[in-house]
Amino acid sequence: MSRSDRERRASAEHSDDLKPGPRDERGVLAARILAVARDAFAANGYQGTSIRAIARGADVDPGLVYHYYGDKEALLAACLQVPPAMRDRIREAWQTPAGALGTALVTVTMANWSDPDASAFLRAMVLTAAHHADTRDLLRGLIQNQLMGPATIGTDADDAQRRASLIASQLLGFAMARYVWGVEPLASMTDDEVIAAVGPTIQRYVDGRLD
Amino acid sequence: MSRSDRERRASAEHSDDLKPGPRDERGVLAARILAVARDAFAANGYQGTSIRAIARGADVDPGLVYHYYGDKEALLAACLQVPPAMRDRIREAWQTPAGALGTALVTVTMANWSDPDASAFLRAMVLTAAHHADTRDLLRGLIQNQLMGPATIGTDADDAQRRASLIASQLLGFAMARYVWGVEPLASMTDDEVIAAVGPTIQRYVDGRLD
Repeated sequence: MSRSDRERRASAEHSDDLKPGPRDERGVLAARILAVARDAFAANGYQGTSIRAIARGADVDPGLVYHYYGDKEALLAACLQVPPAMRDRIREAWQTPAGALGTALVTVTMANWSDPDASAFLRAMVLTAAHHADTRDLLRGLIQNQLMGPATIGTDADDAQRRASLIASQLLGFAMARYVWGVEPLASMTDDEVIAAVGPTIQRYVDGRLD
Repeated sequence: MSRSDRERRASAEHSDDLKPGPRDERGVLAARILAVARDAFAANGYQGTSIRAIARGADVDPGLVYHYYGDKEALLAACLQVPPAMRDRIREAWQTPAGALGTALVTVTMANWSDPDASAFLRAMVLTAAHHADTRDLLRGLIQNQLMGPATIGTDADDAQRRASLIASQLLGFAMARYVWGVEPLASMTDDEVIAAVGPTIQRYVDGRLD
């Protein structure tokens, strides 16, 4: 169950019951701390982020942040856990027959960046990775093992890695341009227009000639 | 003359003369402040960066930063001036006949990210833009007017904008993956391998069917 599912359930229980136990409140506060922390790491980098500032942003005592997440390194690790809904969507997309993977991977990218939980994670990941070596390692591992891991593309493992890195370069660049930087008209194209424009690029990286 | 040209000339004069005037020292210090500021804005964001920290990083008095560049906003603007050598390279690439633009634009992207001055600028631009609205406006303007401005592609202005935004999405995603995040094997592919893999994507965005 994802953190946001947990929060939704907690608030559903709350409205049913009106006497939330500590477990419910913990879920709400933990989710709020995590959301603030993701924004902070993305905006200010690892060095520029303090537990104190995160606590202030989440309107909780710094001691509670330490209590829930441990130190700053552990908190960053919690921020960079792939949301389960996102991982499931990607896994499912990779079940698509190879000839339709271009469309499927563009579609799942748009679904993830339109999901608040997944997009907060993705934004924190790509921005923190830009100036934090450990997060960069994590991002590389994520691309190779989780985002592209289920892939059975290419003629061998090296070819699969090459294709996966090219797919990642277009999908991440597309997502940054559309969702982070807001480059027009990419930012306001319909999903169908995006699929028609970017899908064939991904399809060629899946099974086209690259040399 | 670019800042780094100025610095090279200043240090050439220095070795000829051994009695550098204040103008030479100014060029060296100004370039050093600018380099530190670019890294700081990229790593810590606009909010997370102080003139004091930049001065410390450049080993100068904060008063000197104010004296050379004015306030923090003006300093960021100075950081985000397109290096002339980079602008010239891009202009030249766009002179390429349409049928070879895919290769030319991938090649010029690699040239710019391999040039320390241009890549420091690009890195500061894309990272600061991720969490600073004014820089985002600047990045969008840059893509539309300078990086893609000389373009005479597409059937009309709207089509040209659409193609330019798609080209930018792939070239920026490629550059982030190769030079910022170090995603393998993209990060260690030869220039020729990159051109063979990514060139056709760009070529299709230049003159292929997108719907």
